[in-house]
Amino acid sequence: MRILLALLLLCIRLVAQPHPLDALSSAEYWTVYETLRAGNHLAPDTLFASVLLHPPDKAAVLAGRTAPRQADAVLLREGKSFAALVDVTARRVVSFNELKNAQAPFLGSELGASSEIVKKDPRIIEALRKRGITDLTHVKCYALPVAWRGVPEQATERLGFGGCSAGHRTLHSWGRSIEGLTFSVNLATRKVVKVNDTEVVTVPTASNDYEEIPDNPRPYTTPILTAQPQGPGFRVQNGEVSWQNWRFRFRLDPRLGPVLNLVRLVDGGRERSVLYEASVSELFVPYMDPADGWNNRAFIDAGQFYATSPFIQPLKPGLDCPAHATWFDAIFPTETGAPKLHSRLACLFERHPESPAWRHGEDGEIFGRPTRQLVLRTAAVVGNYDYLMDWRFDPDGAIEVAVGATGVIETKSATLAKPPATQIHASEETGQYVAEHTIGVNHDHFFSFRLDFDVDGTENSFLIHRLTPKRIENDPWRRSIWVAKPSLAATESEAILDQDAARPAMWTFINPGVRGSLNHPAGFELMPGKAGRSLMFADDPTQKIGAFSAHQFYVTPYRAQERYAAGVYPTSSRAEDGLADWVKANRPIVNTDLVGWYTLGFHHIARAEDWPVMPTMWHHFHIRPFHFFPRNPVLDLPRSLETTAK
Amino acid sequence: MRILLALLLLCIRLVAQPHPLDALSSAEYWTVYETLRAGNHLAPDTLFASVLLHPPDKAAVLAGRTAPRQADAVLLREGKSFAALVDVTARRVVSFNELKNAQAPFLGSELGASSEIVKKDPRIIEALRKRGITDLTHVKCYALPVAWRGVPEQATERLGFGGCSAGHRTLHSWGRSIEGLTFSVNLATRKVVKVNDTEVVTVPTASNDYEEIPDNPRPYTTPILTAQPQGPGFRVQNGEVSWQNWRFRFRLDPRLGPVLNLVRLVDGGRERSVLYEASVSELFVPYMDPADGWNNRAFIDAGQFYATSPFIQPLKPGLDCPAHATWFDAIFPTETGAPKLHSRLACLFERHPESPAWRHGEDGEIFGRPTRQLVLRTAAVVGNYDYLMDWRFDPDGAIEVAVGATGVIETKSATLAKPPATQIHASEETGQYVAEHTIGVNHDHFFSFRLDFDVDGTENSFLIHRLTPKRIENDPWRRSIWVAKPSLAATESEAILDQDAARPAMWTFINPGVRGSLNHPAGFELMPGKAGRSLMFADDPTQKIGAFSAHQFYVTPYRAQERYAAGVYPTSSRAEDGLADWVKANRPIVNTDLVGWYTLGFHHIARAEDWPVMPTMWHHFHIRPFHFFPRNPVLDLPRSLETTAK
Repeated sequence: MRILLALLLLCIRLVAQPHPLDALSSAEYWTVYETLRAGNHLAPDTLFASVLLHPPDKAAVLAGRTAPRQADAVLLREGKSFAALVDVTARRVVSFNELKNAQAPFLGSELGASSEIVKKDPRIIEALRKRGITDLTHVKCYALPVAWRGVPEQATERLGFGGCSAGHRTLHSWGRSIEGLTFSVNLATRKVVKVNDTEVVTVPTASNDYEEIPDNPRPYTTPILTAQPQGPGFRVQNGEVSWQNWRFRFRLDPRLGPVLNLVRLVDGGRERSVLYEASVSELFVPYMDPADGWNNRAFIDAGQFYATSPFIQPLKPGLDCPAHATWFDAIFPTETGAPKLHSRLACLFERHPESPAWRHGEDGEIFGRPTRQLVLRTAAVVGNYDYLMDWRFDPDGAIEVAVGATGVIETKSATLAKPPATQIHASEETGQYVAEHTIGVNHDHFFSFRLDFDVDGTENSFLIHRLTPKRIENDPWRRSIWVAKPSLAATESEAILDQDAARPAMWTFINPGVRGSLNHPAGFELMPGKAGRSLMFADDPTQKIGAFSAHQFYVTPYRAQERYAAGVYPTSSRAEDGLADWVKANRPIVNTDLVGWYTLGFHHIARAEDWPVMPTMWHHFHIRPFHFFPRNPVLDLPRSLETTAK
Repeated sequence: MRILLALLLLCIRLVAQPHPLDALSSAEYWTVYETLRAGNHLAPDTLFASVLLHPPDKAAVLAGRTAPRQADAVLLREGKSFAALVDVTARRVVSFNELKNAQAPFLGSELGASSEIVKKDPRIIEALRKRGITDLTHVKCYALPVAWRGVPEQATERLGFGGCSAGHRTLHSWGRSIEGLTFSVNLATRKVVKVNDTEVVTVPTASNDYEEIPDNPRPYTTPILTAQPQGPGFRVQNGEVSWQNWRFRFRLDPRLGPVLNLVRLVDGGRERSVLYEASVSELFVPYMDPADGWNNRAFIDAGQFYATSPFIQPLKPGLDCPAHATWFDAIFPTETGAPKLHSRLACLFERHPESPAWRHGEDGEIFGRPTRQLVLRTAAVVGNYDYLMDWRFDPDGAIEVAVGATGVIETKSATLAKPPATQIHASEETGQYVAEHTIGVNHDHFFSFRLDFDVDGTENSFLIHRLTPKRIENDPWRRSIWVAKPSLAATESEAILDQDAARPAMWTFINPGVRGSLNHPAGFELMPGKAGRSLMFADDPTQKIGAFSAHQFYVTPYRAQERYAAGVYPTSSRAEDGLADWVKANRPIVNTDLVGWYTLGFHHIARAEDWPVMPTMWHHFHIRPFHFFPRNPVLDLPRSLETTAK
């Protein structure tokens, strides 16, 4: 009896124990707080900029060993930034250091305070008065982080750079920028350092309202209903998602959004590893206008802003995901270190693309199976922009990664109402008029996705098939073909890649030690989408902070600390940390644990249709099995979506 | 009373009159037959290879004038090909000519007969016997068309080139090719011209069955139901589709599949023109193996095969389209000239992508509208390959054109069962092993889409914004930006374009004469997808027949006769007709009626997962309004998909 009880207690303890890759729990955030406090690391005015799960030792996780639960905390006090590693399991501060040449991300409270400080500065008051703005109640002034780029004060001061916008008579102040007036503000001392008043520019009054338009919906929009009367096809149990032949875990991270782990495929009853981890790593959004107040806009959207508000933001049922989706909440820390629940930060649902997984028409008959997708969706909101982020699992072993960009574009006010009708098209070289006095400024979006492939284990290599034209001699029909020339990338420099239609290539992570029935090494292909990469010069200080954007794909050997493509501390960063720097070591990448880094990039020239809110624009890339399965893995799909499997 | 009756009769006549862009009706096919017969153009053994609507005069259609109904017929008699233009309205043969240096497409009956002829040839019988095949009942021999490439006999003879496959003990004979044995056959004289027996190669016995696998569907597949209880949101009336702000017509063409016409957008109660016509124009599929029997495989899938079986083939409810879709039949001619009904050749349905048309999170609230798409889908089956062809209309004025490739890959038998395990990946340079003794041969797919843009009328120009890096001087933050440099393409050579991530550009059809409220010319952007273009040498005779595949985009001035990117008669063609030839004239393209030609191309290196049937792989491109609307045109979408508009 006593043994049974002991076993039961052990069992309960094991069940209650978090998986090493689980998100930090409410209790664990409190332990971080208490441990730091017990170690005398917290003063009454210390603020928590960040508390993130310190990733557990990969080898321990893969071996099924217990790994200590740890957290990385970034603290801010009197303009000084500190990094702490806390062992939650042992309630011990492993390390605590003041950051040198790096800063905590900007906090929400700092930014909130800065607007009020700026609006009390006599130079700002005078500049606004000159523009006819004397009621400052609805003026918003914002201080933006910038990466370190040769402004000496940044090395020692906590500087934000910004401008103001007029919020009067609008639901929101996007599109109401007060141009020609910029400032820098010390967020620590709460002092305006510098005010630049260069010219008076008209503030637009064109409508920026997207919500209060007359509620007279367009015709030809009858209801569409989707239902799963027997519930969803997936199961979520102890943090593990099972859907068809897929198995994976995910956690929601305040900085990165969803982090997928231990992504596996069931093949003949056996679970086979595909990815150890996959997530966004960083997001770089540079604007293309050298004017004062715009030259500093080159945002590191995840790493610079997640302490202002978490990178992922709530979803709306029936809008962002179907109402019948399964919703996931998350617990993120606040500035005091206390945990806070955020609801509906992710949704999981099955989507029916209304198309076949495969089909063939032969002899007047049609054979095939309808397909469906499992979608894990989150939404990031970074100020004006909204990004829908999808991990879409296909039954055939492919994953489609998709980013839908919507929200409000950043606009610059212009004194000229509109471009002259004599111009063929461009309004100015840096943007397009989208409303009267309102220019949507040219810009880019570069997402870095970190894809820690483990194809059937960690010992992987990276294979490039180059499609190479070849001359054919003495053939009446043909003088040329292309052949697929395979080569393994030996070091990182050989795997810095850009897709090019003139010199196409196929990129595959393989496990040369695991051969299929046809002797092919097990492989997973990275299928890039349409490429967009940075056009800025490599020696541009702004380009350096998002240097990963110069190329579409990189492969590195796995290093636990290499997680953020623009570095751990991109705020006022010296751009000395990040993917583009790591690969300079040109480390070997053969038969070892590999990480792929895909840049999903696009340029945006705004159009009138993007105002006052943008129609969603999606961009994609895929990963998919390549000689991973012995044959088409979706022959066993049900013949209809409307009946269940027997 | 008599006046009323007269008016009624006039009304009935007007209603009964086909729209000039309607498909040929059953009665009209009969009129073509009767008119040709009355003109003594039909002998008892004359076969109809093709009867297609002769496109009506564009100016007449746009002016709302009646245009005579006409048909282009291609006839075949004793190996001679004839082209006839028949005025259906006047029951008159406008022209009738024997084709010189061109041939009718291969007919189904020719191909059917050729297999039997070949199987009776002693050389073939002996060659098969040598391979242990003595029961020829289930052997299939096929004669394939090739474009004219320096084989002199082609100029005068109706030659097919092919091989045989072993259909014994399989449901279909794909993957059972008898390699090393090829022939040419004169389809007119029904004589085998030449037999090539080079080597005996093992015929695979690996399973090619995708349908009879044990019916044990995978778990986690509960039903998904989609319903539109109030019916679809679109209407189809007198051939015109109305859906939200879209209006368009379409007809189903035996050669091209769906041909969209008069595509318009309603803007403030006014219909505005976007496209006069849009369709596939041709499809070029070259294989990359110089071996005998493979060097000739470079198919012009639409123009060479539509007389064997129509380019578009039936769809299956619940598989290819949702069961509740609206289905469209078509009437195509048979070889006798008589019409034949083909059912379910197209479907039209609303698709719910489960995502927002736009959204923004602000101040803890989420605003937005869910979107939906209208999908016009067809499926082309060309022998082994199946292509799903989608025209997807978005509420915001964008059209997504998508091609889903599935079906069975072409394989080459190999005596070696599999590649040695010592190789890192490649089986051979021309293909990949996908099953034992079975090599999926490398190949390409190039779709040419013909897009007759009429942006707010026919007087259009083509604007290229080149994203050009620019050095910034004396700025602490920035040394570079990119600027969007606009230029109008003056002539065709300036609009032969390839998307390149290193030198990106935005491509827009504009109407400089129609300015919006911000003085922008009304525009529609062509947003290319990932580019894949031909890697074959320009001087390769095989490349010449699909020469359009060398580039991703072309713009030509509208010419009624320029419809088929690889020429009107690609069978045994001399490659002297087609897009790549037309643009050599380098005609002006400013302020005139323009046609855009988009090449949707992709390379295919097969994988084990593509056997015995391929998981569907989709490729896309978009067109979308660019300064066409004064602002975001989807602010008026209903707030929910589940309730109807008031």
